[in-house]
Amino acid sequence: MLTLYSFGPGANSLKPLLALNEKGLEFKPHYLNPMKFEQHEDWYKKINPNGQVPSLDHDGRIITESTVICEYLEDVFTDAPPLRPKDPYLRAQMRIWTKWVDEYFCWCVSTIGWERMVSRIARSISELEFDKLVERIPLKEQQVKWRNARDGFDPKVLAEELRKIDYSINKLEARLKDHQWLAGNDYTLADICNFAIANNMDAVFPEFVNDQATPGILDWLARIRERPACKAMYAAAPVRELPPEKEPPAQAQA
Amino acid sequence: MLTLYSFGPGANSLKPLLALNEKGLEFKPHYLNPMKFEQHEDWYKKINPNGQVPSLDHDGRIITESTVICEYLEDVFTDAPPLRPKDPYLRAQMRIWTKWVDEYFCWCVSTIGWERMVSRIARSISELEFDKLVERIPLKEQQVKWRNARDGFDPKVLAEELRKIDYSINKLEARLKDHQWLAGNDYTLADICNFAIANNMDAVFPEFVNDQATPGILDWLARIRERPACKAMYAAAPVRELPPEKEPPAQAQA
Repeated sequence: MLTLYSFGPGANSLKPLLALNEKGLEFKPHYLNPMKFEQHEDWYKKINPNGQVPSLDHDGRIITESTVICEYLEDVFTDAPPLRPKDPYLRAQMRIWTKWVDEYFCWCVSTIGWERMVSRIARSISELEFDKLVERIPLKEQQVKWRNARDGFDPKVLAEELRKIDYSINKLEARLKDHQWLAGNDYTLADICNFAIANNMDAVFPEFVNDQATPGILDWLARIRERPACKAMYAAAPVRELPPEKEPPAQAQA
Repeated sequence: MLTLYSFGPGANSLKPLLALNEKGLEFKPHYLNPMKFEQHEDWYKKINPNGQVPSLDHDGRIITESTVICEYLEDVFTDAPPLRPKDPYLRAQMRIWTKWVDEYFCWCVSTIGWERMVSRIARSISELEFDKLVERIPLKEQQVKWRNARDGFDPKVLAEELRKIDYSINKLEARLKDHQWLAGNDYTLADICNFAIANNMDAVFPEFVNDQATPGILDWLARIRERPACKAMYAAAPVRELPPEKEPPAQAQA
């Protein structure tokens, strides 16, 4: 029995969601609501003490970390369609890409995403309520990130993250302008893990991802979105609406 | 034919060096000299365009990224002693540890290491020579790090990194105080990759790693140092002496 705890098909949660769909594995999706800060509730911290999604429960054993979950599914369900190259050299190339997502690409996109989107959640509640919610967050770094989402990130940090996004998109385009997939000739976890971060960037970051600058990335995104597994993943997802935009609280701007 | 390009048994270079020795694989060690900035020379950037060590050349195919190289050796040399658990759940636990090293533990220790040690290399040459060397570095982030090593890191950054080291050491001790190894009952890449960063911390960071605070870590370090593979690795290593300590250049202090 597989249960996947996630926010639904976006960012790190998307990786195992798409992998499970691609492999055709039966699983129970448990969607946590980030607007209700469910990931920091005690029942969930018993599953993942870091209070982060996604987590996989496989017959009572818990696996955390999105990329590790994806590799786990490959190790266990060897009869399902593989998402890792057989050739060890190509498998290493795949891991260089998934590692790069986790160490570089996801962080710069995440900061800007938190500034633009998560800020709306962080500003939707009172200061008192917010302080209480932050207290429940196990990781110090996540507490600071939530605080920044509410108060606004340092403009210098945002500028540096935008530079890194630019670098990242150029790196992806350099590969995808003349290759169908990132690692070797097949669709692999390299594509799934990068898609998790790059999907929607044509809508949210049109200054970086557009017809003229990144035709290779756009083709690749379209190819993945057309896959039956990807369509099934989105069709099953909960609809969430962000709270309206709001300025940071006055004391933070002072 | 295997050739490993590395700085020798320390930090990320140590991971594949120790793995190769543990697996008893014949390989040609090519030790680059960081004091001569050899990792940024054109011949090496043809091997690894990021100008970083380690890199593995296996019959002309290049694998980069220390953790990826270690997994590659497991994938290819299946007859050699394994350093990955067979059980997929334990293998996932191993990967959570190696990922944590790459995303968290290695960075905080690295910053302080650069402040205390690499600064001696960065300050051993003239400003003009230094500027030319920095220009050859392919990654922007590495250019900034070298500049900080020469000028001195921001004290706020150093304080935050020390907080993270404290957190990291507590996390390791919590596991090692009553377990021999990090992932399951066997010595795995989880131990090797953490050892790469934690080794010498009893000498360099005695405020964190000492008899009273971290008996579990000290036992674990001793167990790994006693292994024949580890002794062989150190015995083969080049002896490097750091330039003498020096204050940052005057213009940086202004």
